[in-house]
Amino acid sequence: MQTPYYAVIFTSTRTDLDDNYAEMAIKMETLAKQQPGFLGVESARNEIGITVSYWESLDAIAIWKQNLDHLDAQFLGRQKWYENYVVRIAKVEKEYSFER
Amino acid sequence: MQTPYYAVIFTSTRTDLDDNYAEMAIKMETLAKQQPGFLGVESARNEIGITVSYWESLDAIAIWKQNLDHLDAQFLGRQKWYENYVVRIAKVEKEYSFER
Repeated sequence: MQTPYYAVIFTSTRTDLDDNYAEMAIKMETLAKQQPGFLGVESARNEIGITVSYWESLDAIAIWKQNLDHLDAQFLGRQKWYENYVVRIAKVEKEYSFER
Repeated sequence: MQTPYYAVIFTSTRTDLDDNYAEMAIKMETLAKQQPGFLGVESARNEIGITVSYWESLDAIAIWKQNLDHLDAQFLGRQKWYENYVVRIAKVEKEYSFER
């Protein structure tokens, strides 16, 4: 992707409570992909989870943060699914890649 | 952590070749932690791997990138361990967190 753009780095530890977490994660990923300014998302989880989403601008991130369905998910996340999390908003200044 | 600081977002897909990968990963993490300007590192892997390391400055990142043992590891990574990877250098402008 052409720099600069923005990344939201979401690192989390889950509780033991499942309660539709996987469904909600898929729903939020699907919804994020429909937002204006969305560029991509990557996730991995074992002991901790890391999800990085990529966005064209800080405005696009702010609008997604305030999306009503997303606000519901954030609330349920704090109520049920996450032991703790950190959200970092970062400006991607440089990228390079390797492909075999 | 006090913003601004820098993040290196390393996303990768592994080859099937093991060949001391885990040992090297631990060695590099140990070495990174000894570098000046190192602030922290978080990793998760299932289908893809995401490692995010945090640094005080772009200079600290540049010096770590050129560390001789790290250059060896990067070379072996391209030769053996990674199918593909992307490295992104990003300036963390804002962070917030939740703790149960």
